[in-house]
Order: sequence, then C-alpha cells, then structure tokens
Amino acid sequence: MTVRVGIINVTGFAGMEAARLLWNHPEAELVAATGRSLAGQMLGKAFPHLAAYADLPITTDLEQEVDVVFSALPTGASAEVCAPLVEQGLRVIDIAADFRLREPGAFTEWFHEEHPAPELLDRAVYGLADLYASDIAKADLVANPGCYPAATILALAPAVAAGIVVPRVFVDAKSGISGAGRGTGGGFSYSDVNEDVSAYRVADHNHQPEMAQELSRLREETEVAVTFVPHLVPMTRGIHSTCYAPLAESVSQAEVLALYRDFYADVPFTVVSDTAPHTKHTFGSNKCLVFPTVDQRNGALVAVGVLDNLMKGAAGSAIENMNLMSGLPQEAGLDHPALYP
Amino acid sequence: MTVRVGIINVTGFAGMEAARLLWNHPEAELVAATGRSLAGQMLGKAFPHLAAYADLPITTDLEQEVDVVFSALPTGASAEVCAPLVEQGLRVIDIAADFRLREPGAFTEWFHEEHPAPELLDRAVYGLADLYASDIAKADLVANPGCYPAATILALAPAVAAGIVVPRVFVDAKSGISGAGRGTGGGFSYSDVNEDVSAYRVADHNHQPEMAQELSRLREETEVAVTFVPHLVPMTRGIHSTCYAPLAESVSQAEVLALYRDFYADVPFTVVSDTAPHTKHTFGSNKCLVFPTVDQRNGALVAVGVLDNLMKGAAGSAIENMNLMSGLPQEAGLDHPALYP
Amino acid sequence: MTVRVGIINVTGFAGMEAARLLWNHPEAELVAATGRSLAGQMLGKAFPHLAAYADLPITTDLEQEVDVVFSALPTGASAEVCAPLVEQGLRVIDIAADFRLREPGAFTEWFHEEHPAPELLDRAVYGLADLYASDIAKADLVANPGCYPAATILALAPAVAAGIVVPRVFVDAKSGISGAGRGTGGGFSYSDVNEDVSAYRVADHNHQPEMAQELSRLREETEVAVTFVPHLVPMTRGIHSTCYAPLAESVSQAEVLALYRDFYADVPFTVVSDTAPHTKHTFGSNKCLVFPTVDQRNGALVAVGVLDNLMKGAAGSAIENMNLMSGLPQEAGLDHPALYP
Amino acid sequence: MTVRVGIINVTGFAGMEAARLLWNHPEAELVAATGRSLAGQMLGKAFPHLAAYADLPITTDLEQEVDVVFSALPTGASAEVCAPLVEQGLRVIDIAADFRLREPGAFTEWFHEEHPAPELLDRAVYGLADLYASDIAKADLVANPGCYPAATILALAPAVAAGIVVPRVFVDAKSGISGAGRGTGGGFSYSDVNEDVSAYRVADHNHQPEMAQELSRLREETEVAVTFVPHLVPMTRGIHSTCYAPLAESVSQAEVLALYRDFYADVPFTVVSDTAPHTKHTFGSNKCLVFPTVDQRNGALVAVGVLDNLMKGAAGSAIENMNLMSGLPQEAGLDHPALYP
Repeated sequence: MTVRVGIINVTGFAGMEAARLLWNHPEAELVAATGRSLAGQMLGKAFPHLAAYADLPITTDLEQEVDVVFSALPTGASAEVCAPLVEQGLRVIDIAADFRLREPGAFTEWFHEEHPAPELLDRAVYGLADLYASDIAKADLVANPGCYPAATILALAPAVAAGIVVPRVFVDAKSGISGAGRGTGGGFSYSDVNEDVSAYRVADHNHQPEMAQELSRLREETEVAVTFVPHLVPMTRGIHSTCYAPLAESVSQAEVLALYRDFYADVPFTVVSDTAPHTKHTFGSNKCLVFPTVDQRNGALVAVGVLDNLMKGAAGSAIENMNLMSGLPQEAGLDHPALYP
Repeated sequence: MTVRVGIINVTGFAGMEAARLLWNHPEAELVAATGRSLAGQMLGKAFPHLAAYADLPITTDLEQEVDVVFSALPTGASAEVCAPLVEQGLRVIDIAADFRLREPGAFTEWFHEEHPAPELLDRAVYGLADLYASDIAKADLVANPGCYPAATILALAPAVAAGIVVPRVFVDAKSGISGAGRGTGGGFSYSDVNEDVSAYRVADHNHQPEMAQELSRLREETEVAVTFVPHLVPMTRGIHSTCYAPLAESVSQAEVLALYRDFYADVPFTVVSDTAPHTKHTFGSNKCLVFPTVDQRNGALVAVGVLDNLMKGAAGSAIENMNLMSGLPQEAGLDHPALYP
Repeated sequence: MTVRVGIINVTGFAGMEAARLLWNHPEAELVAATGRSLAGQMLGKAFPHLAAYADLPITTDLEQEVDVVFSALPTGASAEVCAPLVEQGLRVIDIAADFRLREPGAFTEWFHEEHPAPELLDRAVYGLADLYASDIAKADLVANPGCYPAATILALAPAVAAGIVVPRVFVDAKSGISGAGRGTGGGFSYSDVNEDVSAYRVADHNHQPEMAQELSRLREETEVAVTFVPHLVPMTRGIHSTCYAPLAESVSQAEVLALYRDFYADVPFTVVSDTAPHTKHTFGSNKCLVFPTVDQRNGALVAVGVLDNLMKGAAGSAIENMNLMSGLPQEAGLDHPALYP
Repeated sequence: MTVRVGIINVTGFAGMEAARLLWNHPEAELVAATGRSLAGQMLGKAFPHLAAYADLPITTDLEQEVDVVFSALPTGASAEVCAPLVEQGLRVIDIAADFRLREPGAFTEWFHEEHPAPELLDRAVYGLADLYASDIAKADLVANPGCYPAATILALAPAVAAGIVVPRVFVDAKSGISGAGRGTGGGFSYSDVNEDVSAYRVADHNHQPEMAQELSRLREETEVAVTFVPHLVPMTRGIHSTCYAPLAESVSQAEVLALYRDFYADVPFTVVSDTAPHTKHTFGSNKCLVFPTVDQRNGALVAVGVLDNLMKGAAGSAIENMNLMSGLPQEAGLDHPALYP
C-alpha cells in the first residue's frame, strides 16, 4: 500500500527536493504540500522543474489524509506545527533543527527562544540511518540531521567509537550556497558569492552542539569537544567536511581503512573511499563518501565526509527515514547514481 | 632610473600576472620575457589580455640586459636557471619552491630530486615582506613564498610569535583552480571541477614543510607541528586558509585582535579584519586579510588568512620583493583596490 | 523481457550518462560497455558516480549478447563500428554525427573524410522522437540528433512547418562546457572558461547542415537557410538556442503559442512554455522547453529552445529512441523531474 | 590641476567601480560620494575592496566642491538630480539611461514615466567616445551608453556606416549577472542563476531603442530595425553581443576586416580582433573587442562585440568621458591590462 506523504513548506529547497524524490518513489506518493507564500498555485506551475505535479495544489494547511509528514519549516516554527501531528498519530520527520538537541536548555542557548514542545524531545529519534536504523524504524518522530553534522558524524564515527582519537576535534566544513536556503535576499546574490570563499559564524554555528552531542554518544564516558567552522564556497550543492583529531594511539592507514570499512559494512549509503572523495560524485545522490587518512608525521587523523546537502544532508535522508518508519526497504526511491558531470 | 625586469617563463599564470603588474609599475619595466612553448610570438599576441605588450617578443632565453629576474619556472628547473644569474650579479626572485626549504635534505625528501644549487640555499632570503622586509632589501636571491604558506604564516604569525598557542596547528586551506597552473591537462577541466570541492595530497603536500619551517622561526625553541590539507574549490583565484590551534593560555577575543593589530601595525599589505574576510575582497589586489577568533568554548584559536594566490600568493609578492631589493617604495605598482564584484 | 544494452565508448560524457539512466530503467539493462582507455577496470570503479556498476567491466569490444547498441564514439569512428552491428541484426543508435546528413557528399564536406558506410545512410532514421516517433519505432539504425540541432529544430519546427516564417533563420546557441566532451585537454580548463563567454566556429559549425537539412524537411518546397553561431558559457550542462526569423505573415503572440501547443500536443518531452525558459529547469531531465515570441515591432519570430545537452541532447534522447525501437513506452526510464537548484 | 570628482550613488556596482578606477587615476580624485542606504559610513569600511578610501565618508548629498559628477542613480531618479548640477555649471556624466533617447516620447514609452528634464535632452551628448570624442570634449552633460548598446553599436558601426548590411539586425546579447545591479533581491541568488542561461525581456528591453537610434545615426537616410534579446549567463562581469544582419552587397572576410580596422584606426579602446574574442580578455579593462565574420554561405554578417559591462559598459566609459570633457588624455587612468585568468 502506497505511503501517503505530506510536505509542510514545500517551497524551500529541502521541501522541493523531497517532492522531486517522491515523484520517482515506488511505494510512496506526495499527496499534500503546504507553502504560505505560494498557496493556491499548482506545485508544477510554481516550480517548473516539478512540472510533473501539474495537479497538486500548494495549500496553506495539509488538506489530504497522510501517513507521513515532512516538516521543512524554519527551526522553531517547525516544532509548533509538528507537535499536534505527532499527537494525532502521524509519523513525522522534522527536517528543521527543533528535535535534534536533547536538552531544552541547549535549544534555548543556541536558538534564543523557548522550545515549543519540550515534552517531545525524549520521544524524538536522531535520524541518521547509518547509525540508528533500528531506532528510527520504531519512531514516530524523527529529527532529521543537519547537513553539516551528517557529513561530520559519518566521517568521525568509526574513529570516535573505537577510541583511536583524542576526543578533541576540529571540523572545517565547506558548503554550497543552497545550504543557505531559497529566497534569502541580497547576501547570497551571484555577484557577491561567485569567486568567493568565506567562513561565517566561526566557532559559533548552531550545528556545533549537534555534532558534540552525537559524537559523544558514540563511546561511553567520552565527551567530544568540537571546534566547528563552516565556509561558503561558490557551488550550488555539496558539503565537504574535513575533520582533524589527534590520534590516541598509533594506527596505520590500512588499519584505519579496515576499521571504517568494518563499521559501515552493512550500511547502504555511507561508502568508505580509498582516495579523497569529490562532492560532485554525490551530486543528486543519497551517498555519503568518507575517507580517513592518518597523518603519521604528526599523529593525527584527518577524516573527510562529503555529501549532497539537499540529499543525504536533508531530503534524501528524510526519505530514508520515512522508508524505515514505514517498513519499506531503506533504499526505496533513493537508488540513483549521482549526476555527473 | 627604471628597473629593467626579465621574466623567465612568462607563459604560466604567475609569469603573465607579473607582466600585467609591470605594465602599470611606475618605476620598473618588463624588457625581456622567456617561454619555451611560445617563443617567437609577441607577448601581446600570445595573450590577448596583455595586448599592450604588442612589441615584446617571447624568447627562449633572456636577450636583454636586465636588473632583476623573476623565475616562474617549475620547481627544480628554476634553481638551475637562477644559479648562474645570481653569480652574474643580478637580483633574482624565484617564484618556484627551489630556495624555500633551508635544508637540502628537505628539498630531496619533498621533491624527490637532488637540489641543483645547494650552495645558494644560505644566501636565499625567504621573501615574505610582511615579516622580513629588511632582510629582503639586502638580498640578491629571494625565495618567493608559496601561496598556501603565505596565507597561513600571515594568519598564524602573531599568535605563534607571542606564544599564545600550543605549537600544534591544523591548517585547512581552500584554493581556486588557477593555483594548479596553466595548461594542466584534463584534471582541471571545467566540467570536472565546477560544482566540486575536494581535498588532495591530504597531509602530504610540499607546502607543509615550508609552513613548519617558517612558523618555527617565529619563536625561539619552538618547533611547530603542522597538519596541512589543501582543497580545490570552484573559483579561479583566491586562497582561504583556516588555521586551528589549541590556546596555550587564556586570552580574550579583544586581546587577540589587539595583538594582531600591533604585530602588523607597520605593514602595508597585511590587514587585520574584525569580521570573517572574503577571498573576493582581495581579487586582483596584493592584500592579505587576516582574522583571528578565539573559540572560548574549547580553548582554541581559529585564524583565517585570505589572499589572491596569483598576487600576494605569487606575482604581487614578487613585485613587492623587487621593490624592496631595488630601493623602491614597497607599495610601488601594487596600490590597486581589489576588483569587485 | 528486459532489453539488453551495450554502450560503445562508455568513457565519454554521453556514454556515461546513458549508463546512469539505464541503472534506473525499468525494462532495460546495461550488460556491456566498451572503452579503450579504461578497458579492464570496473565501470563503477573508474567513475565513482556510477559505483552501482561495481561488477560491470569496461572491455575493449562488446563481450555480451545485446539487443541494442549505443555508439558514443567520435564521428567517423562510429559508423565503422556500427555498420557490422547493423548487419548482424542489432538495433543501433549512433550518438555521433555519422548518420545524420543524408548526402555522403555533405559528410565529406563537413568532416573532411569519406563516409565509412554510405550504403547505410538511407536506412538510418533521424532520431528526433518528438517529430519522427513512428519511423524510429520501425528503424534498426537511428541517427541520434546533435545537441544544438535538437534544441533548434524543436524551437523552430512548428513555425517552419506552418510557413509563418521566411525560411531564413539566424540561430544563436549557448552551450555548457560538457558539450565539448570529456578529457579534452587544456582548452577547456576551469581557469580559462570560467567567467568567459565566447563564440566559436562562427557560421562554420558542422551542426549547421544538420539543422538546414532537417528544418527543410518540415515543409514542402522549402529550403531553410541557417546562419548558426555556437557559444560556450561557463556552466556544465545546458543548451539555450535562440532562433530568429522574419515573419512571413502577421501573427499574434497568442496565435503562435496556440500553434506551438497544438503541434506538440501529443509529445511527452517537448513542452511549450509561456515565459522565457531556463536551462536549469531541464538539468538532468529529458525535457526540451520551447518558447516562441513575436517581435511585433519588427515582424520577427524569436523562438527559444532549451535542454540538457547530455540528456535530450544526447543520452536521454538515445534512451527514448531505444524505447521506441524496442516497443517500450516512450517515457520508460526518463520520467525524472529536473534537479533543481 | 587635479579634477575633483563626485559620485552620486557610490553604493551600486557602477558607482563603486568608478571609485575603484579613480583611486589609480593620475589626474582626478574622488572627493565626494553619496549613497542613501550607507550614508554616514566610510566608503573604505562599507566596501572592503575599497579599503583605501578609509577617510571618505558616504554622504546623503554631495558635500564637497567638485568639477565633475558621475550619477549612478536609477533611471528617472538620475535626471532629476543631474538637472540642477548642470545648471550650476558642473560637468555631469549620467550613467543611467535618462539622457540617451533623444525623444522625450521615447523615454515615456520605454520607462513609463514623464522625463524629468526634457529641456536638457538636446544638450546631452551620447558618450560613446569611440565615435563621438570631439562632441564629448565640448559637452557639459554626457549620456553614458548602456552596456548592451555599447557592445552592439561598436560591433556594428563600421558595417552600418559603410552600408554593407541591410539595416535589419538581430542582436543576441549575453550578460554577466552584475549587469542586474547590486542588492537586487532573490531573483539573482547564486543557487538560482548558477548553471543557468535564460533570455529575458525578449524583444522588449529598453536598450533596444537606444541601439536603433544610435545605429540609425551612422548612415544618412537609414533607419536600422533592431530585434534585441538579452540573456543572463552565469558569470559576474562581461557582455558578449552577437549581431546578425543580411549583407547588402557581396564582401569578403578580408574586406570586412580591413573596413573595421580602418574605422577604428585612431581609437584607443575598441580593438578589431581576427579571431572570436573572449569576454574574459576584457575583464577589468576598458577594451571593447570586435570581430566581424562573413557567412558567405548565406550572405550575412555576424559581428561580435565583447566588453566588461562595469568598465567599457559603465564606469570605464564614464572615466573616458570625464577625461575628454576635462582636457585630459583619453586613456588617463584606464590603461590597465585585463585581469586574467
């Protein structure tokens, strides 16, 4: 039986990417899509690349019966809308950051507002399917990971879990401009960001606590300290997270590769690469490519994770979570090669 | 009296950029330019953007009397050509890597060949004018810094010299594609590198020993360990070096900014920024913008340095060195605003 | 029964794009792939975005039994390889230009060599499925259209067929760099073509006779004169063909739109737009968007056609032809929304 | 004696480019700069690439005594501000479109408002220095050409003036995104315009009447009909205008080249190229490269003009006009090679 899906805020990049993926999903169908600014228009008319949805109206509220809801609202607004849906018994996947931090205090510290539904925080499962597939399968509320944390956690998880690195990491991430969202004013105009690289929110980005929290879960009695610096680079999609940590013990390149391969042996979308991966090799796909290197000269691990921020970093991951929550194969609708070049 | 300049290998990006700058230099003139592949053509015909040089032939060897030579040959080939010129009493600026590492053994380790002129290594001065202007002024052989080291050393120098960081740094650098040079085959075709970020030579790039050597010079009895990972990003010019180091003592953001401002108070081309700088703000200029941030949460320094890899990272720096070596004002011919947008 | 497909020269952009599409095709399967330079490697290893093909070897010659062959060889080489395959009774789709021009003399004039298999020219069907679906369904040798002609012919066909324009057209086309192919040396390096627009082969490109021949077929006793100028623009995929022709009679904007809509009413992949279309809205899809405008001030038609040069302009069109030749639904494996942004 | 210059609306791309050029001008100095949104800030602080202007305040109105004013206001607003300045005896260069169309009715038709100062239209000189240098030298009010018209008129002028083409031209122009101006909201965000080509205002752009008017001036009793279609391509700077016209008489490629070379023999900034020129070869320079080709097959002229839209297409041309109006050498402050790559 086809899973009926609703997308809240289909007009952002993550929402429209989920709609794109659902068009080719063999066992799920997009039946409702909301979006305040474009309500009343047909989805296929508002966004010419989604012309296939010629008859699906964008509405103010969800108007069809659905089994699963993706919320692509801004953080803060999202929890407020998700809470009653969870109470109604729907399966909800929150693509915003509302349910990622376990401590209500952490939410307030980083987002400067009270959490709108703190009672649901314990119920939410962190939706990184490569690590928590079985928990996700049982959940009715999933916190879809942030794009930077997804790439970073997958790059570091085997090393942190095995205890081969000192829990003191530096994370230097490079993102394409679509990470800034759609319709985001003058700051991301082509003339300004083309031929430009810049850091922003240096050591002060709200994906830092998410990384620290999730990396610390991976090994008992380990608190991982994270210095995180995001950068914008002139491309549309893609995240390249380069992670640095001192080694806790001496390991060889071959041992680290074997450790990583073993860790991800049964996972469909995280692939261990034996050469430095390219973001372009994940363009439009749900893959995360990870690549660990040992700097023997200085006793450090350099671990790279790359992914498409709108796919594995947002909508692709959401579909993956929907599949698990709905008893579908994890790869359903996601088994597409990357688009290259 | 006008300084007569010759460029060896004007057909690479660094060589042609030096030619561009010399056209508008008030007290120096390009009188000779070599380039094997295009010998016999006029410089202004071979490179339409240099049309002003309609009558300057590209030759196989330097055919005019010159005062100063820029060598933009590949590393290894460069020292061989420079050595006799130094002996003849010319002032030589080597834009290649031949004279940067003080130890002949280090050269062999990183470039896999014997150094062609080890006897000149002691005579060469490291040409980072923001730190060594007076030494450069007295030199007849200058090793022009690498593009990555220039951005990195300028970002870290005040902190290392003051001893406020542990001498264990992680350097994550992002470079535009022109850093790979001109005429470099299929690996850097537009279709492959557009919409792509990738790391390369992870913790194994030959600019690493240059960084380690030069940072270690800045403070007595300090050996700085450097893990260096370069990345290519889809833009033409620009380097963004993001440097991470644990703090050795507690300092505030204001103190670090003051330390940096003080350190660079008398230097024309390195500017301390109080916000995260953009590579685009240095496009076509000789400026290096540096920006230190304290990550108080984790006790770390994040120091950013950005510059145009063909200007302050190559030809601009070479002109600056020529000025100092020739008794001209340091800024002569280099006082151009960046081209924006 | 699944159609077994072989790709000759899978290592070019068109070949690898066909492989990508076949991975998700419901009724066809890639079973053999040749490629001289990478023979012996696994396809999924040679091209990381095609990792799914982990066990498909790249071979020197077709080694599996196949039903359909795509030839993505260079023009000239292609006919030579295709001829014996046609004789063996295989269905052959030539993505090169070998079978597009009906006159052997035209081939010689434009490609400066004798046609290797002139006896097959009459047998070949021009594979523009939006115009010739029923002929293609009966063919065993199809000449896949060039990327520029596909966009241009689809933009002009309704107007030429109806006789509303003077048969004297100016075609100004803009192409992404992938149109130049893979592994094509220094001429298309990122540093040279980024931030650049240039025309090339002005009024002398070998897609001109293809356009003239095919446009002239659309209306009896009409010979269409074509001035064609291609341009390269700094993007990877996409063709935007802007076509200009004097009106032969007075028509309104509404009449022209109605004429176009009527002409393409039953066609799945050519869509008439009522606003100026964007190449980006076809990225990764098999759609061609056409947009006719009447310049009433000067009595002229301006007709725009946009498509993805590797999809509708090459591999997507080839799949479409395979579907028709194999009795499959025309849209099989091609019903993907464009990837945006 | 140094010419004192004021820029009205220094905060747009044309205004800030003029400021950049004036910094290195040997005989002119920027002494005043207005800009409503950033009034009160220092120019060098508001725009980091103009850091050299550390002490020049952005003001609401011109506060210093000036000799020459550049107005970079939006069309309509500009004439209103320029009119009293002309009356005061200042030399005024209007970079907006207010004084380009000679007929007040044409202004109203295209800009949908009454002309604010129709009495000045006769006094204004069209500021294309390659054609009208001596008129400009005597003017006190100059209408700086639009970027598209500058490239187009220079590409076609020799052919139209000589009468070798039928006065019925099709102009297909491609522009970088900076032509859309600074701070222009969501429509030109990187994610939307990267990897995209699109036409806009097809046969309905307000630069069309400017082209038609100016081309018609070049030959007696000739009214030139112009169909003009502008396109946006993903680059920051640059215009490539490709112009098509039927030949009125038979001419050879060599004759056309000779005609063009002769026409521009005494002009510093328009250069006749004998190969298809690249926009990138004009990046940051004041050159316009023109390239005529004869399509002998169809009896047509294809004439290309390329330039940097912020230089020869706006601020560079304004400086050139200022030079002529002030008795300075035409090339003063503009003799810079293009920045490449």
